[in-house]
Amino acid sequence: MFRLDPRLAADTLPVGAFALSRVRLMNDAHFPWLVLVPARAGLQELTDLAPADRATLMEEIAAASRALRAVARPDKINVGVLGNIVAQLHVHVVARRRGDAAWPGPVWGAGTPEPYDDDDRARLLDALNAALPDLVQAK
Amino acid sequence: MFRLDPRLAADTLPVGAFALSRVRLMNDAHFPWLVLVPARAGLQELTDLAPADRATLMEEIAAASRALRAVARPDKINVGVLGNIVAQLHVHVVARRRGDAAWPGPVWGAGTPEPYDDDDRARLLDALNAALPDLVQAK
Repeated sequence: MFRLDPRLAADTLPVGAFALSRVRLMNDAHFPWLVLVPARAGLQELTDLAPADRATLMEEIAAASRALRAVARPDKINVGVLGNIVAQLHVHVVARRRGDAAWPGPVWGAGTPEPYDDDDRARLLDALNAALPDLVQAK
Repeated sequence: MFRLDPRLAADTLPVGAFALSRVRLMNDAHFPWLVLVPARAGLQELTDLAPADRATLMEEIAAASRALRAVARPDKINVGVLGNIVAQLHVHVVARRRGDAAWPGPVWGAGTPEPYDDDDRARLLDALNAALPDLVQAK
């Protein structure tokens, strides 16, 4: 049975779910940053997914990218599948701006997360939900 | 017309080509590290690709991951699409080992590349070509 890794759960806020992946918002006001977690048990690498699920995941990455672009108007989208610290397969989709807290370096391991304040969090979650009409409520 | 970005060309060595992507080896002996460059002009983001090409790219990422696993026996594969410095769409597929020069952080922006010596480069390119039977010669 799929169960979200506790570290991922602690670092992120629920947004909703695509057909395959749970969608979470990294609770770091430095970067508009979604995390997609394919809701299948025991996954660590992209190659652990069946090819059809991999294709679905790619389209979910594209949908998350488009939503971040609509909401945050970034200069670049960064996508990463690392898992060096949290082994459960998860995909980072991050809106980057020239001059942001880590630019032009990667966001991973760069500085200390700054949790959203209540207003900013609510506003961003509303905007993301509006930009992601295909989302369903995460189970 | 597609033309490999000069910075990517300078930092990497040719391995071959998949149906969509050129396959290059990052010339950094710290990490067995492939770079896939979809050979279409004007791409910057995954969302610039047609959905069918995105699915093909995903399978090429999986094939590169499997080849690196066969050749380098890593603890984790890291995949990244950044483009903050080189805008041309390219995908990093990196074999990571616990205790490697950047572990558990990301490889991007971590330290100075160490070019392969002639013997190690030849050996690795041979092993990658053997592990990637679907590769064709890059044009």
